[in-house]
Amino acid sequence: MIRVAILGGSGYTALELIRLLLRHPHVQIAAITTTQPGRPPIAELHPSLLNRIDLVCEPFDADRLVAADVDVAFGCLPHGASMTTLPALLDRGVRVIDLSADYRLRDPNVYAQWYSESHADLAYLAQAVYGLPELYGDEIATAQLVANPGCYPQTAILGLAPLVAGGAIELSGIIVDSKSGVSGAGRSPKLATHFPECNESVSAYSVGSHRHTPEIEQALSDVAESPVEVVFTPHLIPMDRGIYTTAYAVPTRPFSDEQLLELYRAFYAERPFVRVRTGLPATKDTLGTNFLDVGVRSVRGRVVVLACEDNLVRGASGVAVQNLNRMYGWDERTGLW
Amino acid sequence: MIRVAILGGSGYTALELIRLLLRHPHVQIAAITTTQPGRPPIAELHPSLLNRIDLVCEPFDADRLVAADVDVAFGCLPHGASMTTLPALLDRGVRVIDLSADYRLRDPNVYAQWYSESHADLAYLAQAVYGLPELYGDEIATAQLVANPGCYPQTAILGLAPLVAGGAIELSGIIVDSKSGVSGAGRSPKLATHFPECNESVSAYSVGSHRHTPEIEQALSDVAESPVEVVFTPHLIPMDRGIYTTAYAVPTRPFSDEQLLELYRAFYAERPFVRVRTGLPATKDTLGTNFLDVGVRSVRGRVVVLACEDNLVRGASGVAVQNLNRMYGWDERTGLW
Amino acid sequence: MIRVAILGGSGYTALELIRLLLRHPHVQIAAITTTQPGRPPIAELHPSLLNRIDLVCEPFDADRLVAADVDVAFGCLPHGASMTTLPALLDRGVRVIDLSADYRLRDPNVYAQWYSESHADLAYLAQAVYGLPELYGDEIATAQLVANPGCYPQTAILGLAPLVAGGAIELSGIIVDSKSGVSGAGRSPKLATHFPECNESVSAYSVGSHRHTPEIEQALSDVAESPVEVVFTPHLIPMDRGIYTTAYAVPTRPFSDEQLLELYRAFYAERPFVRVRTGLPATKDTLGTNFLDVGVRSVRGRVVVLACEDNLVRGASGVAVQNLNRMYGWDERTGLW
Amino acid sequence: MIRVAILGGSGYTALELIRLLLRHPHVQIAAITTTQPGRPPIAELHPSLLNRIDLVCEPFDADRLVAADVDVAFGCLPHGASMTTLPALLDRGVRVIDLSADYRLRDPNVYAQWYSESHADLAYLAQAVYGLPELYGDEIATAQLVANPGCYPQTAILGLAPLVAGGAIELSGIIVDSKSGVSGAGRSPKLATHFPECNESVSAYSVGSHRHTPEIEQALSDVAESPVEVVFTPHLIPMDRGIYTTAYAVPTRPFSDEQLLELYRAFYAERPFVRVRTGLPATKDTLGTNFLDVGVRSVRGRVVVLACEDNLVRGASGVAVQNLNRMYGWDERTGLW
Repeated sequence: MIRVAILGGSGYTALELIRLLLRHPHVQIAAITTTQPGRPPIAELHPSLLNRIDLVCEPFDADRLVAADVDVAFGCLPHGASMTTLPALLDRGVRVIDLSADYRLRDPNVYAQWYSESHADLAYLAQAVYGLPELYGDEIATAQLVANPGCYPQTAILGLAPLVAGGAIELSGIIVDSKSGVSGAGRSPKLATHFPECNESVSAYSVGSHRHTPEIEQALSDVAESPVEVVFTPHLIPMDRGIYTTAYAVPTRPFSDEQLLELYRAFYAERPFVRVRTGLPATKDTLGTNFLDVGVRSVRGRVVVLACEDNLVRGASGVAVQNLNRMYGWDERTGLW
Repeated sequence: MIRVAILGGSGYTALELIRLLLRHPHVQIAAITTTQPGRPPIAELHPSLLNRIDLVCEPFDADRLVAADVDVAFGCLPHGASMTTLPALLDRGVRVIDLSADYRLRDPNVYAQWYSESHADLAYLAQAVYGLPELYGDEIATAQLVANPGCYPQTAILGLAPLVAGGAIELSGIIVDSKSGVSGAGRSPKLATHFPECNESVSAYSVGSHRHTPEIEQALSDVAESPVEVVFTPHLIPMDRGIYTTAYAVPTRPFSDEQLLELYRAFYAERPFVRVRTGLPATKDTLGTNFLDVGVRSVRGRVVVLACEDNLVRGASGVAVQNLNRMYGWDERTGLW
Repeated sequence: MIRVAILGGSGYTALELIRLLLRHPHVQIAAITTTQPGRPPIAELHPSLLNRIDLVCEPFDADRLVAADVDVAFGCLPHGASMTTLPALLDRGVRVIDLSADYRLRDPNVYAQWYSESHADLAYLAQAVYGLPELYGDEIATAQLVANPGCYPQTAILGLAPLVAGGAIELSGIIVDSKSGVSGAGRSPKLATHFPECNESVSAYSVGSHRHTPEIEQALSDVAESPVEVVFTPHLIPMDRGIYTTAYAVPTRPFSDEQLLELYRAFYAERPFVRVRTGLPATKDTLGTNFLDVGVRSVRGRVVVLACEDNLVRGASGVAVQNLNRMYGWDERTGLW
Repeated sequence: MIRVAILGGSGYTALELIRLLLRHPHVQIAAITTTQPGRPPIAELHPSLLNRIDLVCEPFDADRLVAADVDVAFGCLPHGASMTTLPALLDRGVRVIDLSADYRLRDPNVYAQWYSESHADLAYLAQAVYGLPELYGDEIATAQLVANPGCYPQTAILGLAPLVAGGAIELSGIIVDSKSGVSGAGRSPKLATHFPECNESVSAYSVGSHRHTPEIEQALSDVAESPVEVVFTPHLIPMDRGIYTTAYAVPTRPFSDEQLLELYRAFYAERPFVRVRTGLPATKDTLGTNFLDVGVRSVRGRVVVLACEDNLVRGASGVAVQNLNRMYGWDERTGLW
């Protein structure tokens, strides 16, 4: 039984993490922190947790967490807050799975370019492992700091990895057109996510400037062992959960649908959470699960990839638990199947 | 051609009013006010209006509006702001249709009890006419100040009026169970109307304390010529628009379904915007229209009334135009049919 | 480890049952039947089950199921089909949890009146136990045939039971106004559940004639030990899952909100799946869980009860597993917590 | 005043057409046909039309329609039915606006390839004019038979026309990624459009095989005066109405965002229904209108086009009325503004 802390308990990824961890056979939730005043019970911040968990949230205090025998901390803090908060825990030997974007980009210059501020913790950044278990599983096993991947990037990276790994597509000009449910925007109310604004509507946003672009490119470049460039366009879709990514690439040689499917099946043969579908994927088939479903087609001289997931489970808290399982040597499906 | 001003241009009722007035043959929108800084074009506050209307919003200034030959002002201000803003226009002879709740309750003590503040304009309150055209049409025709009715109350009042008018039901213990789309909560983002919170969920709110309760009772008491008491429970439903009210009452004598329908058909024979349905109403059949659809059934010793509308058209801006039509002697369907 | 069969695998309750049972530590799914031709893999009927379960559906054959050592069968058949199919299994000693309505109403005349056909299996009807664990837990433990309760009735029955048990309300004229997500209508496409018809719309249906009426009355009459009569109005709401029931009753003596809440807390003190909420319940807080959340208020001389659940879990497949747990003496939360 | 007939009254495009035509100052609806038995009132097929229109639907009979002085017929028939039904009217001199796909593709071989059957009316096919008013306005004015364009194609064609017209992009390998609300699938219930299947889900469909592909290519090739090839992927989105198309192309020379916007503004300067947006378009801003909103960006060596519309108004019935206006020489905004 390991003891975990959740840092930043008020958002959707924290709630999803709590739900998953309550079912995990080897984990006990020891502490939940919040910046909200008055030590609110976590079931007050998330009414769905009533009678499920009795913890009272507390302010972040690294010494207190260490004194409480916390083995692992999950960072559910806003971008920017992680890199100033987590070092105190890492210094004290706690292992950390950070769900923010702070430790995902290896190059601090790339971070500064896309996030418009300098990185505040170059030391731990250099040690962080990108937490996509299907591609970085071995490094994750021994990491002290895992940078849990972004929701969009997982669909793009795992959707395209079999193609770039095999040199099957050209590495620039890859189109990544993604559609996301609204929970991906977090729990802070704003006009764009006000129900009567986004319901019954679809719109692209952050065209050409979304921060997940360099994250997708970094991981795909690792797989390709050569620089990859993508054009990434996210869209907001009127549903709670689910990301659907449709990617378009130019093949380096002709492929039939069946050849493409075989390539994918071989690549993911030992990866239980990636399901290669013969038919077309749909986000609903992944709802509430840690599966990432993928399909692929050859269309008029292009390869079309279709990949989807539940953005709060596979896209955030589920893959965090999958990372935890790898860090402790448990079957990666533990608590997630 | 009359010239109108819209006070408070940034919300949903203002947007709907602009859409309707752009189609009205006898109306010109002369001015739109806002408290937002910088004189924003109205099409910037509401992107759907691009290329439809070129007006720039301005701060409220009664003299300026009079100088601009404004005949009628529509108040789309928050509750509380109307009663401190509108007197300046009324003093200058402008006719006003106020969409807030400020002038709906004749008794200032009732206002104070439900709105937790004293009424600030007793003089004009005494002259205000409740703007439900099917019941107060004659007074509306000559009114200077019309208090446009609330969205919920219209479904409850028009749904129950034929019964209380004819002494067909007991006047206390009437149950009014209402279901509303989220636009009824306005355009200011808050957690309760954040998409991932209210989508895929239903909940009651303000049980026993919703401010539309005394408004329903005031109008039904007028119709009954005797005090009426209701238990009103509003619910939030995951859709943009539409209110559905199911009311339950104890009949004073037995009725068949057909007798009830006849009672309703007779009561609304000359009211084009109330449609008595033989089948069960559905909010979608009223979407985007000024219709209020009603059905009625006899069930196990109770009368069950089903009434619905588009909360932004019939429930607010459409009925405001219907009131305008009555105030100027035009066919009440003008611009709304 | 017990072996279970699921009869009728193509619908939503079967899918939900499979999801829950795959997580249950003491259960193995031994067989799934369908009337669909060609022995389709269950993951073909429900693509979300890909890589989760390899079973192929088979035609119903009682001898085959007994030969496969099936201990318990879950009936997910349409109403009417259960009472002609299940006797063959019951005769062979298999225990059955039937999710249809066929064995819920003890009086075959009441069945005939509301379902417009004679009951075809009076023998087993006489032995069936109504499967609402909070009220009939002891009988369920030893039953061979459990009639799993309807989705709407559970909210009404558990919502009102503390009041009728204590003689706190009058037993006739109880209003039950329910709102349901669309999955409650099953998986067969029809115009009323076609997305563009029911999305962005609310409507009542089966006013005064819904078949869950006598089921609600039967159970509440058991609790009251006296006949109870309700007026039940179901509504269709544009969301996947969730039922919200608002009930109105006349108290026999005055109650404060706190007195009402105490009554409920005492009644459900030993019932882990019923959560008495101080605040107002919302369906989303029960999504994906077996909880039934309830709130209660005193409003203007009426008691207003608010009760909600996930209609596919608590309302159908979750309570079926809860019944299974009781039948085998396991903690009733097994596989559901 | 011209007299129009609507052929095939039971679907969504017919309903939308009726709504629009009821508001049109120069049009009278003279007849509505249906294959449904028993001459149902149109307000029975579409309850929202209660008290709006009293027509009874009739079986199709060309002579009867001519005898009723019908000037124009709108074909709202299924694909395949139009080309066997409309010739009888065309032979009798009636002008026709056909909303099906039957007369859109000039080359009968292309039709046969994508629709899997031979074209049944080559004679009128040769005379048909493609009804996209912004590009084929002059031919529409004098046409007897107008082939109203598809919903998806309009967003792709008008979204890309300024680029292909100016030789600004390469003409092959254009990516067209479209997202559509569910009403685009028509009114016949099927599993894919059953609410609990498509709500809270996104999925691509007909990847590489959707029939709107050749229609997009035909019109863009006309504009380019050279063959254009697209990869078109449609997706189903959980909302009633709205199509959002995101297109990706390779520019033939570098462009800034501002240069691209200028190109678009110039191209559509005289086209009131195409709005070039500086910000990003959203389907909701076009809801219920005949506008097609478009935005354009330069992203990492690609041009990204964003175009959207209401699929039932601009995408079908609204543009049909716009075509009617052109055919009769009225301002094209008549009844649509």
